Amino acid sequence: MRQDHLITATQLSRADIEAVLDRAAEIDADPGAVADRYREAVLALCFFEPSTRTKMSFETAIKRLGGATTDMGTVESSSVKKGESLADTVRVVEGYADALVLRHPSEGAAKMAAEFVDVPVINAGDGAGQHPSQTLLDLYTIRENVGLDDLSIGIMGDLKYGRTVHSLAEALTNFDVRQHFISPESLKLPRGVRFDLHNSGAQLREHTDLEEVLPELDVLYVTRIQRERFPDETEYEQIAGEYQIDDDTLELADDDLAVMHPLPRVDEIDPAVDALSQATYFEQAHNGVPVRMALLDFLLSEGEL
Amino acid sequence: MRQDHLITATQLSRADIEAVLDRAAEIDADPGAVADRYREAVLALCFFEPSTRTKMSFETAIKRLGGATTDMGTVESSSVKKGESLADTVRVVEGYADALVLRHPSEGAAKMAAEFVDVPVINAGDGAGQHPSQTLLDLYTIRENVGLDDLSIGIMGDLKYGRTVHSLAEALTNFDVRQHFISPESLKLPRGVRFDLHNSGAQLREHTDLEEVLPELDVLYVTRIQRERFPDETEYEQIAGEYQIDDDTLELADDDLAVMHPLPRVDEIDPAVDALSQATYFEQAHNGVPVRMALLDFLLSEGEL
Amino acid sequence: MRQDHLITATQLSRADIEAVLDRAAEIDADPGAVADRYREAVLALCFFEPSTRTKMSFETAIKRLGGATTDMGTVESSSVKKGESLADTVRVVEGYADALVLRHPSEGAAKMAAEFVDVPVINAGDGAGQHPSQTLLDLYTIRENVGLDDLSIGIMGDLKYGRTVHSLAEALTNFDVRQHFISPESLKLPRGVRFDLHNSGAQLREHTDLEEVLPELDVLYVTRIQRERFPDETEYEQIAGEYQIDDDTLELADDDLAVMHPLPRVDEIDPAVDALSQATYFEQAHNGVPVRMALLDFLLSEGEL
Repeated sequence: MRQDHLITATQLSRADIEAVLDRAAEIDADPGAVADRYREAVLALCFFEPSTRTKMSFETAIKRLGGATTDMGTVESSSVKKGESLADTVRVVEGYADALVLRHPSEGAAKMAAEFVDVPVINAGDGAGQHPSQTLLDLYTIRENVGLDDLSIGIMGDLKYGRTVHSLAEALTNFDVRQHFISPESLKLPRGVRFDLHNSGAQLREHTDLEEVLPELDVLYVTRIQRERFPDETEYEQIAGEYQIDDDTLELADDDLAVMHPLPRVDEIDPAVDALSQATYFEQAHNGVPVRMALLDFLLSEGEL
Repeated sequence: MRQDHLITATQLSRADIEAVLDRAAEIDADPGAVADRYREAVLALCFFEPSTRTKMSFETAIKRLGGATTDMGTVESSSVKKGESLADTVRVVEGYADALVLRHPSEGAAKMAAEFVDVPVINAGDGAGQHPSQTLLDLYTIRENVGLDDLSIGIMGDLKYGRTVHSLAEALTNFDVRQHFISPESLKLPRGVRFDLHNSGAQLREHTDLEEVLPELDVLYVTRIQRERFPDETEYEQIAGEYQIDDDTLELADDDLAVMHPLPRVDEIDPAVDALSQATYFEQAHNGVPVRMALLDFLLSEGEL
Repeated sequence: MRQDHLITATQLSRADIEAVLDRAAEIDADPGAVADRYREAVLALCFFEPSTRTKMSFETAIKRLGGATTDMGTVESSSVKKGESLADTVRVVEGYADALVLRHPSEGAAKMAAEFVDVPVINAGDGAGQHPSQTLLDLYTIRENVGLDDLSIGIMGDLKYGRTVHSLAEALTNFDVRQHFISPESLKLPRGVRFDLHNSGAQLREHTDLEEVLPELDVLYVTRIQRERFPDETEYEQIAGEYQIDDDTLELADDDLAVMHPLPRVDEIDPAVDALSQATYFEQAHNGVPVRMALLDFLLSEGEL
């Protein structure tokens, strides 16, 4: 299967995913080998919403490949505020760049952009939609730490609204993975997502209590429970508190457990966990660079994944 | 004529213009030949007002010449808001860069800046004033599509306040061009501009109706009619509607007509036009890169145009 | 003494300072020799507060060494506004870059960041705290103009709140320098700073009147008296007026006097001074590039100063 753009994680087969992760591992092992590969490449960064790690890691990725960026800047400093349509903006920008990274508040924005332009488009988050390069770096981090087969993963927190979690869960159905979903009753997986995962052959179980499943996990993927999901502040405090991780929590866990988090975190993981060998979230963030270098390498060299 | 800075389109003779356009065509034909030419060059981007295409295309241009940028960022993130004068800012920045691109809300800002600094200054828009690199890419686009001699161009929309249109019209008097100005009565060319164009030998006619002149045009250059020019909303709607282009409008036009627009557009050109061979506005935007590469090549290699 | 980070000017011995200034002078004399030295280096720019000259000169510095930047952008466009802690932000960013430049509104921010990350951290201003690369470029400018030994310097303006002035004064105690502090009574050196300077062996005198000391000065370092320090507007106007420099003021000064200012200035130095040979403040700003190149060269090549 050939791919001109990266819009969703679900467009990728197991072979596609493994090709990207293998390339990322090669690059990580010997970054010097590619440091000059794209000396003439320009990557356009079109971020219609705030971003730190996605934007900075794409910027680093293209520069570590020898290339450069052209940055749209914030919406306030661009002609978007003069009323230009997204379709017009991306058709202008494609003339300036060899590939385009797009973050936009509207679901479907990247898919629409890809229909209008000829250069590769990478979806860096489209509202409540997809963020496939995040999924790829999550998979890379899991594979590097505990392997992607015969894996037991716990995915915890806001499973109702957390679409990146849905992407990851869907991508994991390509591998031999037991998925445990841990959340308060009110933030469980939506019925539709559960149905799709079953259809994709997921081995999934749902829990409201971390303790009952923690000892058997290889990975614990923590996400934030957002205050604004709860009408009642007291209810929020109580529920969020039950899904926070600290060093006590982890006493029940395997020493080789990888604790992951897409970041930024607020209270979900106590800073005391940072010093434990199980803390994998900063490494996870750092993996954004080799994974995005691999992605760009595929898209720039062959015009496809 | 030697030029240390690019402040207005009118400072350029026909020979100057042709030299830039020729260089742009060479670069466009073989960008690899210059990809390493300015490896040590740093271009300062000083944008005191929002910009997408001008800023991004200058950024791409210097990078496709092998160079780099140093970016002042937005006014809010700079020391301008601490009360620094423009003269001080540009004298500081010239120490960081080999050339300086300046956009500023005040007419005359670039001219003033050029008096204070020794590195080349490129005016990227000074309020209601000049935007000469836009004029050069407009001329380049016209030349590439239909040629600059024995040309019939229609310039339509807001001719009263549209200073970039005035620059283009003035620059076109260097060539054998019949200029048709098409606008509602209330947005006609100002008397002073018409007088200057006559003095420069322009062959100009004015119209309120596009249909009467459309069939004979080689280029139709559309600009936006701004809502805020009209005290009455209904009057705006009615007048603006008469100067919008759609695929029906173009049935009267020559198949080789080039429809241009400086972008961003709002309603002036219906998206249905985008699919027609006559739509030239995205190509026009893309031409910003080779034309600005050519400009930078002149200014960086020889310190002048 | 080995230094992994640059957090304060006081961490630097005379030998450290001279090593950086010597390297800066070498680079200034032959920038081409280092233009390709750090082709694979990426410098992270984390500016939590506005900056023009510090940010642009670091950006230029790394690019003139052949390297690249990855820019966090403004706080508004980053995940900081999602509630991420500084410790988390810098631990993420260290994975993207070979060194990190940090400006932050909180005193002590850079020191704290340095405790969390392994790549070199350069303090580019931490609130009312330190700004050591500014001190180094001030020292470089003094040395290039009048030498750092047997020097008589006047430091004028807001000596009470001006912490960069305190850094400079402290750094100057490494050399044979007579320091004259000139300010209104209400903005004199704080007792604690005066005490520390005495302990460091400073030769210092305090004045309220510039004229009495101006003729013997080799350097006059002017800083801004901020309006908000005075409850009474009239009092501000009168006092600030007494500490403004114009061409008349300088008639009493030596022809070789170097007038310096960290910029931006507002009214402290009349623009008429700019044309005098004594005006050294733009040169001072420009020295930010070679001095920061030298700093980066130490930190990137050897992982230390």
